[in-house]
Amino acid sequence: MKASLLRIAACLIGAGLTVVAQTNRPAPLQSPVIHPDRTVTFSVRAPNARKVELSAQFLAANQALTLDTNGVWSITVGPVEPNLYPYNFVIDGIGVADSANADLFPNERFKQSLVDIPGATPSLHSIQDVPHGTLTYAFYPSKTLGRTRPLIVYTPPGYHRGTEDHPVLYLVSGTTDTEETWFKVGRANFILDNLIAQKRAVPMVVVMPYGNMMRGTPPPTSLQAAEMYRVFNDELTLDILPYVEANYRVSRDREQRAIAGFSRGGGQSLFTGFNNLDQFAWIGSYSAYLTPEVFDKYFAAVAADSNATNRKLKLLWLGVGRTDFLYKQAVEFDEYLKGKSIAHLSLVTDGGHTWMNARHYLAETLQLYFRK
Amino acid sequence: MKASLLRIAACLIGAGLTVVAQTNRPAPLQSPVIHPDRTVTFSVRAPNARKVELSAQFLAANQALTLDTNGVWSITVGPVEPNLYPYNFVIDGIGVADSANADLFPNERFKQSLVDIPGATPSLHSIQDVPHGTLTYAFYPSKTLGRTRPLIVYTPPGYHRGTEDHPVLYLVSGTTDTEETWFKVGRANFILDNLIAQKRAVPMVVVMPYGNMMRGTPPPTSLQAAEMYRVFNDELTLDILPYVEANYRVSRDREQRAIAGFSRGGGQSLFTGFNNLDQFAWIGSYSAYLTPEVFDKYFAAVAADSNATNRKLKLLWLGVGRTDFLYKQAVEFDEYLKGKSIAHLSLVTDGGHTWMNARHYLAETLQLYFRK
Repeated sequence: MKASLLRIAACLIGAGLTVVAQTNRPAPLQSPVIHPDRTVTFSVRAPNARKVELSAQFLAANQALTLDTNGVWSITVGPVEPNLYPYNFVIDGIGVADSANADLFPNERFKQSLVDIPGATPSLHSIQDVPHGTLTYAFYPSKTLGRTRPLIVYTPPGYHRGTEDHPVLYLVSGTTDTEETWFKVGRANFILDNLIAQKRAVPMVVVMPYGNMMRGTPPPTSLQAAEMYRVFNDELTLDILPYVEANYRVSRDREQRAIAGFSRGGGQSLFTGFNNLDQFAWIGSYSAYLTPEVFDKYFAAVAADSNATNRKLKLLWLGVGRTDFLYKQAVEFDEYLKGKSIAHLSLVTDGGHTWMNARHYLAETLQLYFRK
Repeated sequence: MKASLLRIAACLIGAGLTVVAQTNRPAPLQSPVIHPDRTVTFSVRAPNARKVELSAQFLAANQALTLDTNGVWSITVGPVEPNLYPYNFVIDGIGVADSANADLFPNERFKQSLVDIPGATPSLHSIQDVPHGTLTYAFYPSKTLGRTRPLIVYTPPGYHRGTEDHPVLYLVSGTTDTEETWFKVGRANFILDNLIAQKRAVPMVVVMPYGNMMRGTPPPTSLQAAEMYRVFNDELTLDILPYVEANYRVSRDREQRAIAGFSRGGGQSLFTGFNNLDQFAWIGSYSAYLTPEVFDKYFAAVAADSNATNRKLKLLWLGVGRTDFLYKQAVEFDEYLKGKSIAHLSLVTDGGHTWMNARHYLAETLQLYFRK
């Protein structure tokens, strides 16, 4: 088996054995290899495969790889527009992460790798020579779910030497993502490091929960989804928020609290935000929406007194991509809010339901939160 | 493509669409499923595959899965001895992580999943109802390597409320592992949470660096490997140690500093420890060794004055498994140290070059470090 062979070979070599042990080992594949012209070569060893394709979020359709005489399939694509993209191989119909690439997309289901195409200037999500915040993996007791759950907390540069409270953003990832996805794919920490260094965002704490409340089959209707959002609402307000406030220097002022999320996490952020306007003054919806029937059922009072709602909300921000499969629903939600005279900002971008857009929306809103 | 379909379907559902969108979606697979008798069912959807096997570190050999009429391959194995094991599927010869399982083995090369088989009593690496330490992802400037590098730091329960300095263990992972492997596979944090709660270990800070200094083809001889170890030695002592001491409350007393590691990380720990006996009083080698030629070349003075060495070393600890492919070399190293009258403790266990053993050795030594 390839993985075991590689592992044993790497152990042998790593432990300092002689050249004899190494000669039977194929040289480690490098993949992806990003060329200066932003073309990229992807390779995978699969001597027994009948068909290998590349699936990547910068491609309109899967591309077939070519097999060489050593059992290695490869393809060169591009030039690729600078960004950080998920991709995977499709080997005889099975989606497979790139075994030569340690950068994985954390997810409950699919296994994808990440490739970061640099541009002429450093991207906002890249590690730059600026002060870095840190990320804490913490474990808190969830009374709502009856178990210990993981949480990632970004604290800004200098946090550990300071004494002041910081504003706090609760940032929720999507669908089958984990608490790690806003860190590993969203690069929320590096984006914020860079924006803070450029004085384009205020130093803040960012809390990234494990937002998925679904077990097995997800709820099929928007009202049932809203009930799942309500479980998240309880988890966030009764378990996560008290834990964070007991263990981190974060403000308890509602005007210093924001909640935002991508996809399912955006729906949860809208639900939790509107449900707790006494606790959150900033709400961000990245590629998400609530249906009118959910809003009417749960937030009739919010809609009925839009003046009071607008006084409470420092910002309600909605972003969606023109080719997002949720575009129509997001626009309907936007229109619904307009009809109810609930003030909000909207951004429509190119692109679809992707983490490239999620990062874009995060970067836009990080420059707005806690600014007025 | 399966991953994309799943993702889009999950997005649709998570965003609250109607039942129509869901009917075309297969129910999400649950894998692995651990049964009360400790048998385990592994499943993977691969309708086009010709052969699917399970590779798992609790199996002596790969086992073939069976295809059902829905394109799902599955197998039930066991009962399995309680422990946390790496495993993967082998689909037409390709090692593939379990797409239904979010627990991945962080590694530069192979992609494996993790399955945790619980026993009658909670395992030492499990999340228990005890105070939890936190893990920090930090980013430090490496002058040695000329770039910013990641680091994970465990701080014990109560650390953030305290003011005292703690003893510190530098814990290095193996081969092509990353800075995450001692956390995600080694579960160093939960083992230490539990040992501290049971008063079997002293509260300590644990620093987990990205130990792999190899680029491309690894060094083929033990002397060349030692030169690679020397780069790690510089990185650890000139970059990591100053960063940690500037940013965490750790003792600067050599008797409050330990270094240990698994496999290649064990070799690096032995090298760095012996190279800096003025800075480290505790050294742990988990499934590793140095060759006599390396020891003779670099540490002749350490061997020549064994009395001085023994006065400095509070503990030199060596562990290896009887079926470890490095067993012979580890025993030779043990004999070499005996021949030089360098005091040490040895533990030989069942099993091989595995993370089950790495965790075992960590748990043993965490009860010894900083104890006298």
